[in-house]
Amino acid sequence: MSKNKNYRIDNLQYCNWSKEIFESNREAGLDAIHVTIAYHEDYDEVQENFEEWKEYFAIYPELIFQGRSYLDIEKAHNENKTAVFFGFQNCSPIEDDIKLVESVHQMGAVFMQLTYNNQSLLATGCYEENDSGVTRMGKEVIREMNRVGLIIDMSHSADKSTFDAINLSEKPIAITHANPLFWHKAKRNKPNDILKALGESGGMLGLSLYPHHLLDGTNCTLDSFCQMVAKTAEIIGTKNLGIGSDLCLKQPDSIVEWMRNGTWTKTKDYGEGTASNAAFPNQPEWFQDARGFNNIEKGLKKVGFNNEELHGILGDNWFNFYKDYIN
Amino acid sequence: MSKNKNYRIDNLQYCNWSKEIFESNREAGLDAIHVTIAYHEDYDEVQENFEEWKEYFAIYPELIFQGRSYLDIEKAHNENKTAVFFGFQNCSPIEDDIKLVESVHQMGAVFMQLTYNNQSLLATGCYEENDSGVTRMGKEVIREMNRVGLIIDMSHSADKSTFDAINLSEKPIAITHANPLFWHKAKRNKPNDILKALGESGGMLGLSLYPHHLLDGTNCTLDSFCQMVAKTAEIIGTKNLGIGSDLCLKQPDSIVEWMRNGTWTKTKDYGEGTASNAAFPNQPEWFQDARGFNNIEKGLKKVGFNNEELHGILGDNWFNFYKDYIN
Repeated sequence: MSKNKNYRIDNLQYCNWSKEIFESNREAGLDAIHVTIAYHEDYDEVQENFEEWKEYFAIYPELIFQGRSYLDIEKAHNENKTAVFFGFQNCSPIEDDIKLVESVHQMGAVFMQLTYNNQSLLATGCYEENDSGVTRMGKEVIREMNRVGLIIDMSHSADKSTFDAINLSEKPIAITHANPLFWHKAKRNKPNDILKALGESGGMLGLSLYPHHLLDGTNCTLDSFCQMVAKTAEIIGTKNLGIGSDLCLKQPDSIVEWMRNGTWTKTKDYGEGTASNAAFPNQPEWFQDARGFNNIEKGLKKVGFNNEELHGILGDNWFNFYKDYIN
Repeated sequence: MSKNKNYRIDNLQYCNWSKEIFESNREAGLDAIHVTIAYHEDYDEVQENFEEWKEYFAIYPELIFQGRSYLDIEKAHNENKTAVFFGFQNCSPIEDDIKLVESVHQMGAVFMQLTYNNQSLLATGCYEENDSGVTRMGKEVIREMNRVGLIIDMSHSADKSTFDAINLSEKPIAITHANPLFWHKAKRNKPNDILKALGESGGMLGLSLYPHHLLDGTNCTLDSFCQMVAKTAEIIGTKNLGIGSDLCLKQPDSIVEWMRNGTWTKTKDYGEGTASNAAFPNQPEWFQDARGFNNIEKGLKKVGFNNEELHGILGDNWFNFYKDYIN
């Protein structure tokens, strides 16, 4: 019998939050979600996003509460709620000030990406032409993140920077939402050598359900996805895999435009999209929202995972990672 | 006869400003100085530095006034004053927002470095281990700087980034304060291929009198310096050379510590110094302050420059560069 309680965790969501979405997460049995609260926000701006979540917690106490420790996942499980852990997809909230690492952690940030697509002060993003790796400030910030217990996320980073972060960090790092490159060639997906190094270092990969990361996009089949999971497990290790769906439910297209362009360009960048296909893509029919976890459970069984393995992928592996990191 | 009036320009000073220093600049015959008003300051912080200068202009109207156009150099010359042009040694004042390029230019910034030693959002600094060149945002910002007329300064940048900036910019760029690497091996000094590319593109090199950039440091001889100028002129072109002394008169050592460390590290970085030699270095006896221009004039004559050439180096070349750029 597994030592865990078959937790379900979605380790990346960025929805246009509402009661309906929190309810669908509960119907999916999600004990925890990691939600993005910063793409381009600076320190002052991200405070407003923390405040916004305080209001959600006040309005929907029967559905959600803020997660700070792995114990909150157990609590959520026992109380039929979803623990909400905060993360940043960019290092913009710490601006150019290493002291803000501790501040944002104290405010509740659990994950922070060193880069979001572009070069940051810390590392190189996956959309840059050249990757100089983790910078001088990046090395200092990694040490500080390790010290305070803020988890390094390299989902949107370029490859050398990701290897550097794995090697420089004293603690395992995460790629909270991406898929393997062997399955679908996207700038955001990761090559086998990174997956291998990530797994060997005790890190975690959250598999993405965002159509631009899926083979055949919106038309990706559940079977193709689960076959990919099986192959990926052979590379990274079954215990190093989880879900980070990258669900962006009900967001207006203005949001994806802002995510891609922030304030860094006066022209328009389409990121993973194109000028003729600039909007948020539609989710595959088997993962319209988090209730798709039930489909993935069936799909993983079908491709040969045993119960412990599939519950690991659906949440217990993230639970164990949190348990080692934030306790 | 030269078409210019033998202007004298020091294209980089960062002193602890006082009447005494403004007077010594006047005694040196300086018609214009380019002063640094940002190393790590963000947009709000740099406003305070602009305000501080408004006060200097109000207190010492007989000595200084703000320069905005090359015509202000002519005006200063005619009125026996020094026109003060503002610059940033980092892109921190524009934060992560390309719209701030126009704002800082409107506020009076004339030069902006894309980097200061470390990686920035725009390019790589000369103290980084790897140089990925001008970034995605850097390309956009260069275009915007060209559009508004803010001059690109690559004094503290790494080599590939500097080549990229020369190639990407539609207008000539400047290295306002550095020396050639062939003369003195310092991270801040520039290799011949950069000097060549800079000269061919119509750019300017401001020769530095900061001891860490000088052969034998504080003990550098005037003759050694002037011999270096003669050799450098053969590489970059005599018309592409000026002075950017990097004078940091009367600054307390806490300032150089802040320049090096900003808020990016919790440990201590010594930059061009060392733990045992962390302070501001002493100036060579022949360039204690800007009045050393008189010594350089004699020295340049001695190594064979004719009058037009040496007045070019002492100011007319910067004047012509300004004339083409800000009119």
